[in-house]
Amino acid sequence: MDRYLVISSDGHAGLHASDYRPYVEEKYRDAFDAALPVQIAATKRMSDYFLITEINEEWRRGNEVELAGAWDPEARDQMLDNDGIVAEVLFPDGVTEMNAPPFGAGFNMRPEGTTAELMWAGCDAHNRFITEFVQTAPERRIGLACIPVYWDVDLAVEKTKEARKNGLQGVLLPPMWGDFPGYNHGKYDPFWATCQDLEMPVHFHSGPAPMEQFFGPIPPQEGDEMPHGAVGAYLMEVHVWLTRPINFMIWGGVFTRFPKLKITAAEGTSAWVPDFLDRLEFHYKESRESQKLGDFRGHLAESPADTFRKNFMVGASCMSRKEAEMRHEIGVRNIMWGSDFPHPEGSWPVTRQHQVDTFRGIPEDEVEAMLGGNAVEFYGLDAEKLAPIAARIGPERGSLGEIVK
Amino acid sequence: MDRYLVISSDGHAGLHASDYRPYVEEKYRDAFDAALPVQIAATKRMSDYFLITEINEEWRRGNEVELAGAWDPEARDQMLDNDGIVAEVLFPDGVTEMNAPPFGAGFNMRPEGTTAELMWAGCDAHNRFITEFVQTAPERRIGLACIPVYWDVDLAVEKTKEARKNGLQGVLLPPMWGDFPGYNHGKYDPFWATCQDLEMPVHFHSGPAPMEQFFGPIPPQEGDEMPHGAVGAYLMEVHVWLTRPINFMIWGGVFTRFPKLKITAAEGTSAWVPDFLDRLEFHYKESRESQKLGDFRGHLAESPADTFRKNFMVGASCMSRKEAEMRHEIGVRNIMWGSDFPHPEGSWPVTRQHQVDTFRGIPEDEVEAMLGGNAVEFYGLDAEKLAPIAARIGPERGSLGEIVK
Repeated sequence: MDRYLVISSDGHAGLHASDYRPYVEEKYRDAFDAALPVQIAATKRMSDYFLITEINEEWRRGNEVELAGAWDPEARDQMLDNDGIVAEVLFPDGVTEMNAPPFGAGFNMRPEGTTAELMWAGCDAHNRFITEFVQTAPERRIGLACIPVYWDVDLAVEKTKEARKNGLQGVLLPPMWGDFPGYNHGKYDPFWATCQDLEMPVHFHSGPAPMEQFFGPIPPQEGDEMPHGAVGAYLMEVHVWLTRPINFMIWGGVFTRFPKLKITAAEGTSAWVPDFLDRLEFHYKESRESQKLGDFRGHLAESPADTFRKNFMVGASCMSRKEAEMRHEIGVRNIMWGSDFPHPEGSWPVTRQHQVDTFRGIPEDEVEAMLGGNAVEFYGLDAEKLAPIAARIGPERGSLGEIVK
Repeated sequence: MDRYLVISSDGHAGLHASDYRPYVEEKYRDAFDAALPVQIAATKRMSDYFLITEINEEWRRGNEVELAGAWDPEARDQMLDNDGIVAEVLFPDGVTEMNAPPFGAGFNMRPEGTTAELMWAGCDAHNRFITEFVQTAPERRIGLACIPVYWDVDLAVEKTKEARKNGLQGVLLPPMWGDFPGYNHGKYDPFWATCQDLEMPVHFHSGPAPMEQFFGPIPPQEGDEMPHGAVGAYLMEVHVWLTRPINFMIWGGVFTRFPKLKITAAEGTSAWVPDFLDRLEFHYKESRESQKLGDFRGHLAESPADTFRKNFMVGASCMSRKEAEMRHEIGVRNIMWGSDFPHPEGSWPVTRQHQVDTFRGIPEDEVEAMLGGNAVEFYGLDAEKLAPIAARIGPERGSLGEIVK
């Protein structure tokens, strides 16, 4: 094939907040109606507070039709075609398009902000929507089910089976677990077993953090001023909160008990990987400093870095030139490029130029792996089915400035 | 001089819990008496739970005399002489020697665990003890005052002035601030101003973290089992919680407002520095991904990495060979070697061998800076006063396997 098969590891889809109503089970519609204006007002305040409103509106101007791809399948496919993307992973959305799922089901809020019953209801609503959305072009859409596993592991197992039956291809978990046991805890084992057996990779997405510690009360109130330095301090920690579940799962021995469980973390860049692996290996091997802490490694069947290489993938959204240069330290076979449509920080609508800037001079086989080959393997996709789409819309080999072998 | 002037950036001193009683202001002695058995029991449970008890007891066997240096000045000086250390920075102690200051004043507990009045009383007690301890050999002891600044900034200013007058040479702050505003907040400015004007460097020490999230209820109860992987996950995050205040202070513009404020972080290794600086610089310069977040850099007078180079020092306790190899990325002028006496993970009583292992093959002038020269400059010490001690007990040049110029 003379074109690349490009798969985005990071796309977002979700309805306008009010449009989730028909997807919410009837008995929760009163709660939905009551929560909706609160949710909309809070999202608006967040958007204003984070200075997103103006920038976002400016950026949207003239792009309204394509941005409707956040929920409209036709606009979505048009966007994918124009961007040269064959297929993509679909996370829920949030502040930018004002289309977070109801009842905190997008996992940007902590469990303290809602109840088990409502969060499951919100997840059900989003999962129904995304199932429908996937069905409009099943080969191009890797839909994820939102599974707030900490509330109820048995229910999570059931919902995951249902999602698999409905054509979804992975699960999204909340990266923060509030006062629930962390993901190192054995209580989650039946869920990991299900994800392993059904080949449903576990996903985390960057963004959530203990926001109040940076930004003050969330959502902010009228007149609140953002503390100096809050944004910078938050950006420095984004990857900490994204990788925290992975840290807990690795040391908890989850991958020793479930050696085929697959896991990925999106939109935290991939630049954190080398340092993260270094530290994992250091603590796995170092013996002097931690001698007083007893044996905390004996239950692991292999080194954490080996686990990482085998079970992990990093969603490198809007992958930067710097990450491309670091690709061997990160692991060429552990990187999945992503576009992050429809967010302003994403590569759309300048994806081609972005890819040229990132991949210039890099050998073709490596570009191929990072742009799509790794995702095909990770999600077990049918490359033959995707080939005709790639042949029609994919970027031509050589057009990204890569070294053609 | 044909010997090195060695200064340890990380030593601990503190009385057995019960021996703090005479240092506690009389009106808090009833509270002290009530809290003491609770504190001792909790420390014991922590020690058992963290598997420290047995290892620590084994390690102490035969070392009891020297380990009394944790509170006994003569034993301390003997240890320093044997270890070839001229002077050292003195932090409070904790679990290992069962000698944490009262009322959470060692900052290993969060503000939620005590009250303002009691924590100040505990800090006063420790600060009185450490003042006395310093006076037994003022040129060899760099004493730190414990200042829980979040409770009351004016009082913190007053206590810092008092500490300076009493011969203490720096302040130790809690690295976690609970529900108080973070150290980026302007409310702390009068305190930073005082530290700058009095040349009292601000210290943080590793250890504290949101422990419950790793280990379950703290202190653990009889029969609690440690969750699998808790220790590994915690070790991976130790430097996050140590560097968090620095992150908040840098982005908060503290060093723009107080360009001569000095700051240091101990016992988190120095290996975190290159990645931390990289990320600081990335977020300072990067413009695409964060464009939707508005201007969060304009209030900084210089790049965070420049701030780091000028205002920061890293306490490299038991500095490893790996850190020595990374010294240029970390900054040879930003590293202060430390011994971490009297902890089992510290270099005592094999400091000389440890130094050989770490510094073998490294140029003499760099070893000199890391072992003591940087500390002399950072604390404004009188090198001439220290020279005779170094001439008597310091490691001979060439004896560490370093490259002699």
